[in-house]
Parts: sequence; C-alpha cells; structure tokens
Amino acid sequence: MSTMPTLEMIREAADGLRRVARQTPVLPFDGPGNRLLIKAENLQTTGSFKIRGAYNKLRSLTEEEASRGVIACSAGNHALGVAFSAKQSGLHAVICMPDCAPAVKVEGTRSLGAEVVLVPGNYDDAAREAERLSAEKGYTFAHPFNDPFVIAGQGTIGLEILQQVPDVRQVVVPVGGGGLISGIAIAVKSLKPEVRVIGVQTLNVPSMYASFGFGELQTLRDKATIADGIHVLTPGDLTFRIVEKYVDDIVTVRETEIEAAIVALLEGPKLVAEGAGAAAVAAYMADRMDTGLKTAAVLSGGNIDISALGKIMERELRRRG
Amino acid sequence: MSTMPTLEMIREAADGLRRVARQTPVLPFDGPGNRLLIKAENLQTTGSFKIRGAYNKLRSLTEEEASRGVIACSAGNHALGVAFSAKQSGLHAVICMPDCAPAVKVEGTRSLGAEVVLVPGNYDDAAREAERLSAEKGYTFAHPFNDPFVIAGQGTIGLEILQQVPDVRQVVVPVGGGGLISGIAIAVKSLKPEVRVIGVQTLNVPSMYASFGFGELQTLRDKATIADGIHVLTPGDLTFRIVEKYVDDIVTVRETEIEAAIVALLEGPKLVAEGAGAAAVAAYMADRMDTGLKTAAVLSGGNIDISALGKIMERELRRRG
Repeated sequence: MSTMPTLEMIREAADGLRRVARQTPVLPFDGPGNRLLIKAENLQTTGSFKIRGAYNKLRSLTEEEASRGVIACSAGNHALGVAFSAKQSGLHAVICMPDCAPAVKVEGTRSLGAEVVLVPGNYDDAAREAERLSAEKGYTFAHPFNDPFVIAGQGTIGLEILQQVPDVRQVVVPVGGGGLISGIAIAVKSLKPEVRVIGVQTLNVPSMYASFGFGELQTLRDKATIADGIHVLTPGDLTFRIVEKYVDDIVTVRETEIEAAIVALLEGPKLVAEGAGAAAVAAYMADRMDTGLKTAAVLSGGNIDISALGKIMERELRRRG
Repeated sequence: MSTMPTLEMIREAADGLRRVARQTPVLPFDGPGNRLLIKAENLQTTGSFKIRGAYNKLRSLTEEEASRGVIACSAGNHALGVAFSAKQSGLHAVICMPDCAPAVKVEGTRSLGAEVVLVPGNYDDAAREAERLSAEKGYTFAHPFNDPFVIAGQGTIGLEILQQVPDVRQVVVPVGGGGLISGIAIAVKSLKPEVRVIGVQTLNVPSMYASFGFGELQTLRDKATIADGIHVLTPGDLTFRIVEKYVDDIVTVRETEIEAAIVALLEGPKLVAEGAGAAAVAAYMADRMDTGLKTAAVLSGGNIDISALGKIMERELRRRG
C-alpha cells in the first residue's frame, strides 16, 4: 500500500480517466484580470474530484480483486466516486458511511446502485466497519486517500491546472486525509518545482497541519465542522510523507471564513461549493498566503444539502449586517 | 435598425468575441447519460450571456458614434455587458436601470465604471429615460435586444452549442425581449434546420408567447416576477419577426416551476441561476416539450442577490415538505 505514486502513474491515470471524468473549467474568481482562478471540480462527474482517484483505483484491480467486489468508507464524495466507478465497471460496491453524512451524498451513492451501510459515529467509525467487513466478506478495500492509485488519480488535476494556466505560480488545495494534495503536489513539483503548493485545513480539524508542523503523524480529538469532506482525524502515512516532501505550507481557516467563501463563490463565479470545497478559496480571501502570486484554488466539491447551504447564506448575510 | 442579422454576422461576432467572452461549458443536468445538457452562460464574463451582444454592438460602432459615448437601458445583465464592453473599449457608458433592479446588478455595473441612472418604475420606464437622454445628450443608443448586432452576438451561443453537442436535437432558450432566442435560432436553423428551437417565458409576463400565438406584437400589463431578466412587456419588432420565422414553439412556466429549477440547478450541476436563467430548465422539468429528444437548455445568467436566492431555496424546501 505504501508505494510512492509517480508522475508516470498520474499520466496513466489521466489516459484512463478520459472516458469518465471531465476536464473541469478554470474560472476567474471575481471578474477578468484578477489573480485568483478557480479549478471547478464541483462541476466534475458526481460533484467532486473523488471520481478521479476512485475510478483509477478500480481500473488498477486484478480480475480476481475486482470479482470479489469493492468496499469503501467515506463521508460522501469518495462514496459517490466509488459507486459511480463500480457501476461503470460492472462491479459490486459496498460503502460504509457515517450516519451523520449529508443526505445528498447518502442518497446519491444509493441511486448509483451501491450498497450503503450507515455506521453510527464519525468517519473513523465507518472506516473500522469497512475494514471489518472487508476481512469478513473478502471485499477489496478502496481507501479514500492512503493509496497510490487513488493519489495518482487525484493528481490528474495538477496536470490540468498546469496546462490550463501555464503561468500559474501557486496552487491551493483543501486537505483532509491528504490524497488530493499529494497527487497534485507530485504532478506540479515534478513538472514545475517553482510553483508553490499550499494545503488548507479547517481550524476545527487541523490534523495534517498539526502533523506537518510537528514532523510526525498526529491524531486529533473530534470537533464538528461544516467541512465534512475534510473531516479526518488522522491523515494517511503515505499522504503525510508526500506532503512533507512536496508541499510548501499548510494553513488553516476558521469555519466563518469557509462560510464567507461559500457565499462569495455563489456571488462571483456562480458556483456551489460544499464546506471542504470552499476551504482553499477561504484561505486566499483571508490572506493566509502570498496573494500577489497568480493562484489556482481547487474548488474540490459541491455536494451540500440545500437546507445547510441556506443556513450558511443566512449566517453570512447576518455577519455582513 | 431593422436589418435581419445573418449567419455571416454571427460568425463575425464569434471572431470578435474571442478576446472577451469565454466558450462556456456544456454540463449534464443530472449525471451522465441523461438527455438534458446545460449551456452554462452563468459562467460567462459578467455572469450572463449579455456580454456577447453588448460587446458585438460596441465593436460595430463608427468612430464618431463611439466618441459620443453609449447609453443603454437594462434591468441588469445588459447593463453589466455594456459597462464591461465600454470599459474594454475605453468608451463612456451611461446606463438607465429601473430602481427595482437587483442590488448585485446595480453595484456590479457601477463597479465596472459605468454611470448608472436609477429610474423609478419598471424596465419600460428606464427605456424611455434612456431614449430621452440619448436625444438630449447625443449618446449612442445600445438597445438590449432589438438590434441586429446585439442579436448576432447572442447568436454565437447557437454556434457553440452545435459544436459542443453535435447530436443535439432541441435547444431551449429563455425569452424576454427576444434577442437571445433570435440569435440562437438564426444560427441553429441556418446550419441544422432539423434541430427544434423552443422559447420559454414566465407565465407572469408572457409577451412573446402572446405575440407569437396572436401573430402580432402584443404589449402586456405589468406583473411581478422573480425572473427580472425576462421581465419585458413588449418584445422587439425585429426579434418578433425572427421568432415568427425561425422558432418552433414558445411555452410558459409558472414562477414556482422556475424556483424548483433554480434549486435543482444548485443540487445537480452545482450552478447558480437567476430566475430568467432557470426558465428553460424549468420548462424541460415541467414537460413543456418532447423530453425524449437530446436537449440543450441555455442557463442564461446567474446574477441573483443572495437574500433572494435564500428565500427561493426556503420556499422550495417547504413545498417539498
């Protein structure tokens, strides 16, 4: 499980993904001429980038592994990615999801034909149940981030950004378990080492931030966040090693800053972002980096319940007065 | 003013627009494999398609006309399009807007450097004031829809749809004054006469619907609508002639159907639509056409105040129960 993914693997993933994932557009955040560009992975198939890693993982399975069916654990977007990819490949998929996962993600996963097991508790509880079921029933495990093929799939976003924004100087990426930033950092730093790669976490669950600062993998105590997609208490060991090697900085944002970014994305580029999806834009808006550099922020996903989105909009309008 | 725009004029407009307008993406409405595709003009520069016609109009002016400055009347999106285009071309722009126009549109127009004149009343009152100022001060008038260069600019969307969706069988377009559908219909019917072109109006202001049915230009009494972008009581005479010649059908949707479409666009393709912008999708969702055909619906714009959007989401959630 701990092979370091390579640029070559990312290029192969890009070839394999051509059939199912789309090259999402890069859109200016606030009109032409400004320095922030949005890589709009909320417009990706299944509403988030996760289809890239999930599909690439399933593609890498041997016939024997595939025939046993796949199992995954996810708060939502990886679930949708695995369910969609399994359907494309004609595989049976079982997904363990925490019972607090957003309805839009649970229903979406079911509607793609996957068997959903709702596990009481948080992401870590769902992960344990998935491992137990994998051992008991022989399902092949598709980890949401700590897997070289998953990381290589997410890395295809890095290739696209370099191609779509040839003069980019900085790439900002939301971080939960670290799969997305690992793939992007390998792609970007292999091809253009001078481009800065910055990770962003919510201050409520800063597990990669703490690990990066401490120089050792940390597990945090649980705290609520609107950014369910990056609600991970322990980063992966593989992703941590990649982040240590390739990433320039990890920064954090407050929950209210994420909410402000969600609303700014509705108003400016007219895009729906979930909490995790808006984290990179939030960090840029809150000046957590050199905003003088031409920057691409990854809007990683847009799967958010309408009622939750409505409450965020209300709170943000109240804060503005 | 009443020259019929041609396919050749639309092609020339497309060449001229390359520098300022983007080719907006076409996105599946509800996952891959479904028959409805969204032409996402909410992701266009200035948040709506109007930049296409406005820029093409300003491009067509003689040096003498340009030097006098331009004036326009608009509830919002044409205002943004003219203001942006004038700034690009270094022209002075005056825009008459009804005082009920959404704040996001008024502020956006001002921030692009245009002089905004807020006129008490509705779009028609703003139009009269613009004509008066044009006569008094000598400004060159840039009509929001009843102008061959404006129509040709909007028609570039038709070219893009045929190129991006080669097997499209039906194109659905929101209709206010009729500029957008006129341009698209000329492009589509000139190149592929077998593709159906359907116009959509709100049942609250169905002026083109009534004119089309009656066979003669009609002026309606005023009624409120959430679709401010297509709130036009009298269509243009030029656009009406084009619609009569090229458009297959005009249908209407209820305000609640527009609201349902706005929310469905947030949930499915993760796109922000204003009322007018969601009208074509609303008509498809409400089965006002042959939904068995592969269909492209134009999402014409996304400029909506966050507070208004929040209320629409709340009402729609309440209706769902």
